[in-house]
Amino acid sequence: MSAKTTFSEISPSEFFYRNRDLAGFSNPSRALYSAVREIVENSLDSCELYRILPEIYVRLSYVDGEEDKPEPKKYELLAVDNGSGIEREQIPKAFGRIFYGSKYRLRQTRGMFGMGGTMAVLYSQITTNRAVEITSSVDGKTAYKFVMLIDIEKNYPSILSEEANDAKGWRGTKVKLQLVGDYFRSSSKINDYFKNTALVTPYANITFVDPNGKMMQFLRNTNTMPEPPKETLPHPHGIDVEAVKRLIKNWKGGTMTKFMVQTFHRVGNKIALDFLSYAGIPPNIDPRELSNEDIVKLTDALHAYDKFLPPDGRCLSPLGEEIFTAGIVKELEPEFYAVEVREPAAYSGYPFIIEVGLAYGGKNNQPGLRLLRFANRIPLLYDEGSDVSFKVLNEEIDFKRYNVPQDAPLSIITHISSTKVPYKTVGKEYIADRPEIEKELRNGMREVLRKLQVYLGRKGSMEKQRRKMNIYSRYMPLIARFSAALVGAKRLPPYNKLIGLDMFQDDDNADKVG
Amino acid sequence: MSAKTTFSEISPSEFFYRNRDLAGFSNPSRALYSAVREIVENSLDSCELYRILPEIYVRLSYVDGEEDKPEPKKYELLAVDNGSGIEREQIPKAFGRIFYGSKYRLRQTRGMFGMGGTMAVLYSQITTNRAVEITSSVDGKTAYKFVMLIDIEKNYPSILSEEANDAKGWRGTKVKLQLVGDYFRSSSKINDYFKNTALVTPYANITFVDPNGKMMQFLRNTNTMPEPPKETLPHPHGIDVEAVKRLIKNWKGGTMTKFMVQTFHRVGNKIALDFLSYAGIPPNIDPRELSNEDIVKLTDALHAYDKFLPPDGRCLSPLGEEIFTAGIVKELEPEFYAVEVREPAAYSGYPFIIEVGLAYGGKNNQPGLRLLRFANRIPLLYDEGSDVSFKVLNEEIDFKRYNVPQDAPLSIITHISSTKVPYKTVGKEYIADRPEIEKELRNGMREVLRKLQVYLGRKGSMEKQRRKMNIYSRYMPLIARFSAALVGAKRLPPYNKLIGLDMFQDDDNADKVG
Repeated sequence: MSAKTTFSEISPSEFFYRNRDLAGFSNPSRALYSAVREIVENSLDSCELYRILPEIYVRLSYVDGEEDKPEPKKYELLAVDNGSGIEREQIPKAFGRIFYGSKYRLRQTRGMFGMGGTMAVLYSQITTNRAVEITSSVDGKTAYKFVMLIDIEKNYPSILSEEANDAKGWRGTKVKLQLVGDYFRSSSKINDYFKNTALVTPYANITFVDPNGKMMQFLRNTNTMPEPPKETLPHPHGIDVEAVKRLIKNWKGGTMTKFMVQTFHRVGNKIALDFLSYAGIPPNIDPRELSNEDIVKLTDALHAYDKFLPPDGRCLSPLGEEIFTAGIVKELEPEFYAVEVREPAAYSGYPFIIEVGLAYGGKNNQPGLRLLRFANRIPLLYDEGSDVSFKVLNEEIDFKRYNVPQDAPLSIITHISSTKVPYKTVGKEYIADRPEIEKELRNGMREVLRKLQVYLGRKGSMEKQRRKMNIYSRYMPLIARFSAALVGAKRLPPYNKLIGLDMFQDDDNADKVG
Repeated sequence: MSAKTTFSEISPSEFFYRNRDLAGFSNPSRALYSAVREIVENSLDSCELYRILPEIYVRLSYVDGEEDKPEPKKYELLAVDNGSGIEREQIPKAFGRIFYGSKYRLRQTRGMFGMGGTMAVLYSQITTNRAVEITSSVDGKTAYKFVMLIDIEKNYPSILSEEANDAKGWRGTKVKLQLVGDYFRSSSKINDYFKNTALVTPYANITFVDPNGKMMQFLRNTNTMPEPPKETLPHPHGIDVEAVKRLIKNWKGGTMTKFMVQTFHRVGNKIALDFLSYAGIPPNIDPRELSNEDIVKLTDALHAYDKFLPPDGRCLSPLGEEIFTAGIVKELEPEFYAVEVREPAAYSGYPFIIEVGLAYGGKNNQPGLRLLRFANRIPLLYDEGSDVSFKVLNEEIDFKRYNVPQDAPLSIITHISSTKVPYKTVGKEYIADRPEIEKELRNGMREVLRKLQVYLGRKGSMEKQRRKMNIYSRYMPLIARFSAALVGAKRLPPYNKLIGLDMFQDDDNADKVG
């Protein structure tokens, strides 16, 4: 018996067209959420990398004639930002090719896979067959507008029209597309997305107009922006054979010592020499002389050598205490809050920083514990149960230890910043449980809970004090009246001043003497 | 201020090289498991599509000199099958290109993304830099052997050597590669993987030799194989604008009616005509005359029209009662089992069939409930808590209703067969909670639990009966003796026969008369 198996090749666009569940576009409700989110995240990234205070406008509206139809139906998504803009020749490819983007560098950005914008365009096209409109200006003088589709089989933009207009001082990017969505089922997630985004970007102005014309506006309460993230060199502990080979291939020449110092994160001359002696590699040879076998040995030694310095966090852009606090105060208006910014740590050679916030009571905390998760300033709203923060909070934190009652009106906010967030899906919804990340989360959560414990303790003793004072203030007038009568005084003694607690008493107490 | 964003393009191999967490290769333990699994699944698919009774041999061994090193360390993975084999010119591309494969058709296979084998080769290369060896024969005469690497940046195989040898009657594929793994941490998952695979492929012989030389052997107990899955036409409810455009582009000519009947699943002349009148499309035009606008309207109508027949299950290849039962008996050796094969159903136009098995007591069921999940005959071992079966079992099944005690030694086995399993990750670990799938699982679970309830009920009343009989049998001899004495008989009456329960009594009861 002879059998012939048919093989075929598909393009990256085709792959994600067929498997859009993988990128968070599984159904009309989820897809609407994902499209909004990917476009907003591109906008925020393009502002922050160049320290531009973000001004973002997003509008969802019904396509003509769709308003009264049942869900799912067609929506128009319009998003305008004041970011850096995209050069004319890059515009079609940035939105028309999967695996083409600006995010393929070792640098902290919201986007990690460089395909969110293209996925939104792709989904728009396969559900409505409408061309997407992208307009962008990098200089405030000329704005280029492209009307385009994606040739999915070729993974290439198919441009229908292009025009150049006067930008009239506007710099940024504007995206307009139509897609099949279900706002009825996704509105609460989309609203949460904007609220939570505002919480970690208190320096941004964000406006969202929903299909019913309802406007949500988030105004900045600080002009402080986080330091833009820097690109970083790879850490020796996290590198694989393939990456070492590439570094050597790109090496312009020079000794092994120089190679170690110039291509790896935090390797100085002294450590380089010690490492090379450990690895048994002569420090003066050129790395390009190494055989394949040698490269494998070098990589093994890079992993095993234990005197490399840990990755530092200077390439990361955490929120920091000021911005994090501003966000919590602005969006949650709590009775009490605490923020803990951890020291930089690393997993598999990637640096990361954990920040944990806590908000207690006040206007926007309902009774019961709520977890708000963020990664590189993206709110994560789905699959909470699979996330590392959820795991740590549920399995490793004992609330009784901090005298926090079960139904306390409490939000715990976790934020991880990293050059590589270990997401488990392209849809960026939850983070893998790396032990190094668990440890930092655990310590961060404990720290903010200790602060809450102190606050609640103090509040508790103030409460006691107040109750004591209430008793005084109830009996003082009686005693005053009694003693005034005893000595035959016409006026009561100034007992209010005696206990110094006017504020706890009715002002007219003194007049009650008959 | 003017800023320039740098864009770059990466190849599909490069994308998955950078984001291997997405494909289940996140760490040495998980990667070893994923590599074994992907290779075995390719082998099983290549046997089953051509109805070959599978003979699969897998060996993991330490690379020389690695045995005494600490984990993670280098392993060699060898896998040999007797499947259909791969044509010479396809071998390097099948294992050397991401998005190149034989799985991109609307047909039920284990593989869904067509990249598992290539991911194993890619991971091998980036952790050990060793070339992989692939040998295959399609005719039993010539076996072609390729030694190759992947050019990751180009997403293309880089062939180091090729030879043709006498196949000596062997047809199939053999893969040999080295990779960094952690068998200490993955051995229990790998063992479970083989055990559970054997449970749903009782017609396969599978041998696994672990790095310590321990051999697990699973021998077939049936020669019945499932019907090989057939390719199917798309169902009108699940199709998008892009797909409709492609169907029209490939249309060789003919009327709309003919187009409807020949390109869609279960559409006959009568329904085609009724649909076209519903959609307002003249039945005699050629679909290639439709404008873009018309195609969008046609697609909307395809989704909205409610008289299309549901997808049928003939293109699916479920286990069926015979094979499922054989697997449960062979691998779980239960005291009681039940199997429920549901009728075909559909989600978003994709047909699926749910099968639920139950095994109670016996050799391999420990006290407590265990869930075993399968999809297209793949065991799913990770992320149970996010899976739809787990959700249904925990949230919708009330065990008390079936009088099943909490610590009953019970396994529930779920299997979904579909032309498209809605996995949430490329790593194929858990299934999305589509409501249509939930419903079938719920009904299947209820059915097998009802059967268990009947069995336990019967067993319970037999138990009661037995206890009653025990009481009879205790007093009967006394009564017999008493009555014998009363009438002065020398022999006891044959009371054993009276209650007809010899088996419950000691044989020597009758002799006890003094």
